[in-house]
Amino acid sequence: MNPPITRGACAALDAADPLAPLREQFDLPSGLIYLDGNSLGALPRATAGRVQDVIRREWGQDLIQSWNTAGWIDHPQRVGDKIARLIGAAPGEVIATDSTSVNLYKVLSVALASVQAADARRRVIVSERDNFPTDLYIAESLARQHGFTLRLVEAGEIPAQLTGASGNELAVLLLTHVHYRTGRMHPMADLTAAAHAAGALVVWDLAHSAGAVPVELHRCEADFAVGCGYKYLNGGPGAPAFLWAHPRHLAGAVWQPLSGWMGHAAPFEFTPGYQPATGVRAFLCGTPSPVALAALECGVDTVLAAQALGGMAAVRAKSLAMTDLFTALVAQRCAGHGLSVQTPTDAAWRGSQVSLYREEGAYAIVQALIARGVVGDYRAPGILRFGFTPLYLRFIDVWEAVEHLVQVLASGEWRDARFHQRATVT
Amino acid sequence: MNPPITRGACAALDAADPLAPLREQFDLPSGLIYLDGNSLGALPRATAGRVQDVIRREWGQDLIQSWNTAGWIDHPQRVGDKIARLIGAAPGEVIATDSTSVNLYKVLSVALASVQAADARRRVIVSERDNFPTDLYIAESLARQHGFTLRLVEAGEIPAQLTGASGNELAVLLLTHVHYRTGRMHPMADLTAAAHAAGALVVWDLAHSAGAVPVELHRCEADFAVGCGYKYLNGGPGAPAFLWAHPRHLAGAVWQPLSGWMGHAAPFEFTPGYQPATGVRAFLCGTPSPVALAALECGVDTVLAAQALGGMAAVRAKSLAMTDLFTALVAQRCAGHGLSVQTPTDAAWRGSQVSLYREEGAYAIVQALIARGVVGDYRAPGILRFGFTPLYLRFIDVWEAVEHLVQVLASGEWRDARFHQRATVT
Repeated sequence: MNPPITRGACAALDAADPLAPLREQFDLPSGLIYLDGNSLGALPRATAGRVQDVIRREWGQDLIQSWNTAGWIDHPQRVGDKIARLIGAAPGEVIATDSTSVNLYKVLSVALASVQAADARRRVIVSERDNFPTDLYIAESLARQHGFTLRLVEAGEIPAQLTGASGNELAVLLLTHVHYRTGRMHPMADLTAAAHAAGALVVWDLAHSAGAVPVELHRCEADFAVGCGYKYLNGGPGAPAFLWAHPRHLAGAVWQPLSGWMGHAAPFEFTPGYQPATGVRAFLCGTPSPVALAALECGVDTVLAAQALGGMAAVRAKSLAMTDLFTALVAQRCAGHGLSVQTPTDAAWRGSQVSLYREEGAYAIVQALIARGVVGDYRAPGILRFGFTPLYLRFIDVWEAVEHLVQVLASGEWRDARFHQRATVT
Repeated sequence: MNPPITRGACAALDAADPLAPLREQFDLPSGLIYLDGNSLGALPRATAGRVQDVIRREWGQDLIQSWNTAGWIDHPQRVGDKIARLIGAAPGEVIATDSTSVNLYKVLSVALASVQAADARRRVIVSERDNFPTDLYIAESLARQHGFTLRLVEAGEIPAQLTGASGNELAVLLLTHVHYRTGRMHPMADLTAAAHAAGALVVWDLAHSAGAVPVELHRCEADFAVGCGYKYLNGGPGAPAFLWAHPRHLAGAVWQPLSGWMGHAAPFEFTPGYQPATGVRAFLCGTPSPVALAALECGVDTVLAAQALGGMAAVRAKSLAMTDLFTALVAQRCAGHGLSVQTPTDAAWRGSQVSLYREEGAYAIVQALIARGVVGDYRAPGILRFGFTPLYLRFIDVWEAVEHLVQVLASGEWRDARFHQRATVT
């Protein structure tokens, strides 16, 4: 057993933290320890003012001409270019628009069509059985429409799907890089290489990766990616999502099914026949929201601000230090309370969260913690999920969170009936 | 020739206008005459404050719990119920989400599948050749994917498509109720009845109707509708769009292709298989944006405020009075300048805009008017488009707009080179 970790030791970590100044970028509620940035990122200080300017000046005063004068028309690409810097992509390859689900529909459609054009016998989409459900639902829809089979397997069974007879029928491997429930991270480079060796393409969902862990889409030779704007990118609730396509998939005309006018080569010529724009702009569909994109840009800027302080490598180092600290504190202080750690202890397999499992009362314990000002969330079955956002969390927050967890468990206060009432959204 | 209409006569119309108080709901730039509310509605006074509250309090302070406490999760339906009151629909039938293009993809998919289930020989989608292009592009995509033919005809040729051999192969009639370029309005009840008599379904795009003209979806027995939040609903640039389905199309399980998690029967049970929610909620896909929905709600509220002053009938009466006035003033004062009116003179066929055509210089004349503070827009080829929003326009605005048009034409100032420079967005 290691010597007990003290609050003073955590304060010392904060004093030495090169990313500590980044916390000032956020408007955090006083007294709250927010461990749910993997569900909804915190509010950047810049956002409210920037959104006001878009509403009052760009919309209210300049009205329709802001499409030109304020650059609204290029906003999806401009924000996309900023996101590209966080995920190992190049300018012109990322676009911010629509939702993750809608974007997945687009890129998975294109990926399936691309594989089909080369080998019509490849009719299987493989994904993880407990991948985030919206990804599975979208894949199910495309499979049903176009005669593919969606095959759901356990994480450990994925490699076997990429070789032999299974590999020969594989069209697309669809995975979320960091698992929403357990925080387990897939080896992107290895799985991408193995899928390519099998003759298939890979679509990565970066919902729990972008802004949280280093992502190297080009280095991994990935094919397509989608991701979320409202988690670690701090873009606000329901923020536009993003999508990326490797340039080799953007070389020809991209016929994605949601062929709305903003993805047309010349939308303001109002011609009746669809001609896709060149490059990633072909993945646009309807009219973008400059208000939502302005908020997203403020959020992305909070992550880009880390560039001067060590970049995503520094973010990753602090993230691992925090999740290690949390896990060590839980081991030292919560022993005997029936908690087990679901997130891999090996840093190479871990995202920026720690998920604990408890057979009884997990939901109520999360509610009791929230009542004390420690906000994590519950994910069925039995998971207490804690996200660690290095941009605005301190090591003393981790210590305090575990202190509250100890008290909730030791006191049994979670058994109170009010903590068992289910909310609509968990 | 009628006697000249004077500015004083227009001022008298304003003095007698029952809707005049509604103008106070908007933050309009001083000195600007805004005749482009059919492209981007003006900013309601309530919007900036409401959005600030969503950002600073609901997001910033209450964070993730606002999905429950602020009712974010039900916002698409709550705003949809308000829109329903403007389009002759009932509560629970309308949902505000995504873009018009994305929503059209959903409802057109369901409409095509529904017709196919009854009669697989129906393989034709009929639309208007110069329908708003994004509608045609989405229809083209679905036709290409599922083996339908998209047949584009002139407006006058539509009735012939609904009878005889053409009627027998018709699956869906897809029309925009009020034409974006000419302002011509289709007879919704008649065309819907004729399409039904032929055995087909009808999808209506209400982009230039909702909030501008009375729409009676139930009375017309329409099947599906989509519409835009940022035009006459004043929801702000890129606002969420809406969709409606007649209850007879919501009775069973609705399998729309964009089957994201928010359309699932139980999204927070995180089950791997898709089961559509009951009712119109099955048309949700990804996570909605409470920020964007709050702005849209403020816009919809500006239209609902007319209810106490005569409702959409009063809005329609003022709209027709304004477009009549504009047309009469152009006839009286711009004769000999090569302008022709493209919008139907018969009120029954007219939306809330007037489109003028000029063979030469239409784009530059629009730019010269904008430089004078009269904002209309240009639509190729040769169209000067002027939208009249009864909620915030006065009859003297109409008079002043034509006065400026007379001066631009008489002076020839539109020939100045700066008015011929093309912007990215026209």
